[in-house]
Amino acid sequence: MPRLPSNELFRALAKTQSLPPVDKNHKKAFGPLSTPERLLLGPGPSNAHPLVLKALGQPPVGHLDPFYVDLMSEVQELLRYAWQTDNRLTLPMSGTGSAAMEATLANTVEPGDKVLVAIKGYFGNRLADMASRYRADVKVIEKNWGEAFTLDELEDALKKYKPSILAMVHAETSTGVCQPMDGIGDLCRKYDCLLLLDTVTSLGGVPLFIDEWKVDLAYSCSQKGLSCPPGLGPFTMGPRAEEKLSRRVEKVPNWYLDVSLLNKYWGSDRVYHHTAPVNMNFGMREALRILAEEGLEKAWERHSSNAQQLWKGLELMGIDLHVAEELRLPTLTTVRIPEGVDGKAFSLHLLNEFGIEIGVGLGSLAGKVWRIGLMGHNSTPENVDRVLSLFASELPRFREKTVCAA
Amino acid sequence: MPRLPSNELFRALAKTQSLPPVDKNHKKAFGPLSTPERLLLGPGPSNAHPLVLKALGQPPVGHLDPFYVDLMSEVQELLRYAWQTDNRLTLPMSGTGSAAMEATLANTVEPGDKVLVAIKGYFGNRLADMASRYRADVKVIEKNWGEAFTLDELEDALKKYKPSILAMVHAETSTGVCQPMDGIGDLCRKYDCLLLLDTVTSLGGVPLFIDEWKVDLAYSCSQKGLSCPPGLGPFTMGPRAEEKLSRRVEKVPNWYLDVSLLNKYWGSDRVYHHTAPVNMNFGMREALRILAEEGLEKAWERHSSNAQQLWKGLELMGIDLHVAEELRLPTLTTVRIPEGVDGKAFSLHLLNEFGIEIGVGLGSLAGKVWRIGLMGHNSTPENVDRVLSLFASELPRFREKTVCAA
Repeated sequence: MPRLPSNELFRALAKTQSLPPVDKNHKKAFGPLSTPERLLLGPGPSNAHPLVLKALGQPPVGHLDPFYVDLMSEVQELLRYAWQTDNRLTLPMSGTGSAAMEATLANTVEPGDKVLVAIKGYFGNRLADMASRYRADVKVIEKNWGEAFTLDELEDALKKYKPSILAMVHAETSTGVCQPMDGIGDLCRKYDCLLLLDTVTSLGGVPLFIDEWKVDLAYSCSQKGLSCPPGLGPFTMGPRAEEKLSRRVEKVPNWYLDVSLLNKYWGSDRVYHHTAPVNMNFGMREALRILAEEGLEKAWERHSSNAQQLWKGLELMGIDLHVAEELRLPTLTTVRIPEGVDGKAFSLHLLNEFGIEIGVGLGSLAGKVWRIGLMGHNSTPENVDRVLSLFASELPRFREKTVCAA
Repeated sequence: MPRLPSNELFRALAKTQSLPPVDKNHKKAFGPLSTPERLLLGPGPSNAHPLVLKALGQPPVGHLDPFYVDLMSEVQELLRYAWQTDNRLTLPMSGTGSAAMEATLANTVEPGDKVLVAIKGYFGNRLADMASRYRADVKVIEKNWGEAFTLDELEDALKKYKPSILAMVHAETSTGVCQPMDGIGDLCRKYDCLLLLDTVTSLGGVPLFIDEWKVDLAYSCSQKGLSCPPGLGPFTMGPRAEEKLSRRVEKVPNWYLDVSLLNKYWGSDRVYHHTAPVNMNFGMREALRILAEEGLEKAWERHSSNAQQLWKGLELMGIDLHVAEELRLPTLTTVRIPEGVDGKAFSLHLLNEFGIEIGVGLGSLAGKVWRIGLMGHNSTPENVDRVLSLFASELPRFREKTVCAA
């Protein structure tokens, strides 16, 4: 078939639509992408497993392709293992961990519902902010950043406020605290409220038992314990939360995160909802497969063992850790910045000179701590040694530098 | 430093937290990922450009890394070029196109606002559903699936309803119709309402001038004209929409998509909002760079030229196209399924035997049309020839098969 010259076609196109000339103002000629090498030992993302990166770069398939539909089931099944849950509504939201966080509230909060948020760090505050946007009657109890709640404190608040939902953070990324979970699920049943748990910095790295702990709603992220890049937000909802969802009077006030719609796609109906982020799910599937291959017990042991070596090493150097040992997260350690050191300048120095990212403090811990993550693929003895030797060699020089500059 | 044996550590861990045994019920041993080869000629995703896939598979960096912060600005600038806009609030939402769609409404609709949705296909209905979830007073006007609105029809509705927002779809993925845009922006100014436009199937493939057309809010996706896998939702908001956002009485009722927060991260402050999907943005940056390298005029011409070859070829075979030629999208063609053919069985045959995906009909066009996409990297003369030759060789055999089976 003879082809029309393309100029002629475009002129015809322009004639029927009266097209203006193309503005070249924003047409910048950037070179091809070249990314720097980084060892990510901050609060996340952590480095991705090489097999996960390989999966991410595979050519996409359609979101209703039989191959992809099978892969979705594999992701769900492996996510149930990672979270230790039988919940049918277990799936990665097509957004980051914050989207999954919002999904837990958007689906279950009805206007006027009392939501009690137990705040002990930055992400507790975010839960309270989000809940208020869904017109919850938000109540909060607070602890210092670096502490955890006791069962008595929680019970007092449940008695006082009688909330529909208790929302709290298992592993506070801003403080490095791991909330002990014994008995909290039972308390929530006793006071007839749902238990909503942030497991962003615990999934894959810290013992976590959604069903045994009687957690009704949980969310996480892809880029920490799972060693997949950021972009997906694991979400799970148990039968008690499902029941609250099914009793809703009005539609979920968030279309994208509406689990009743999403379940028609992820469940057996396979009804189109949105075009799935297929490549991110390729990566997630590999990340979860690799975790299952290692086994949860071994992964948890590895995280715990490496973290303890880090803690010992830092303490031997006379550096203080922010959290009492029994509450410390193995995935994320908050390290007190020694007197006289510019914490931000030191972390920039590690990034610029050694390609190593460690985090600075957030919120009330800004300027007071560094945050060192040893998560997923990055939780290795070699990385512990690398951090310790850099702290040993660079921090003293840096102190001198700071003093000299002053 | 001597290491403790990890068993000992785990037992210590289990003792302090009374951990139950790990349930292995969902621990399935799936093999490493192996994806099938697909030529994606449906309504999206389309195949990704090889350089985009390479970018996606690069090791991640932190979301506040100076390298990444520069990359964000590059993505924004290239997106402004692709959309032909100077809007400062131009950025990819960290979700798919549907998330960006929701972002346009979530940020601008206040309870009771009148939103007029001009519906001529599946995605118009979605806009109406979403707007109602933000408590808009939703009004709709409708056209048959396969037609477009005239200026008179739109003006009558604007006069009648006096909405705050007119929402409509530029390129209806469900019908293959391209809405002529001449004069609509001026009408919206005349009746003092915002113009919200779905450009999911037009960005990168069809002439599109956000500023010239006086569009106040628009959204798109990564996986069609841009040839990046699905997972990001380009979003843009002009000054009139920004002003409506700034006048809001209450917070945006969607934390994840709140542009006033997102702008603190994407703007000069670089305040942490959520952990960005960095690898998806690596891919997006490459996709937009490749589009700019080709140039919009050439990309539009290429899409138009290849689509016309497809149309001619199908018509020569006596196959009817659903949309009148002057309204046809170059990116997506709706093809009427000939009498007696099981359309779904034929598309499955192409997928299973040839690895080629074409789409079936959605909503009121289910069972009536196929949807053939020639988008981005996939809009090539070779792909047109491939589809035409398969229609020529397989469809007659298939008709026979269907008849035989009957």
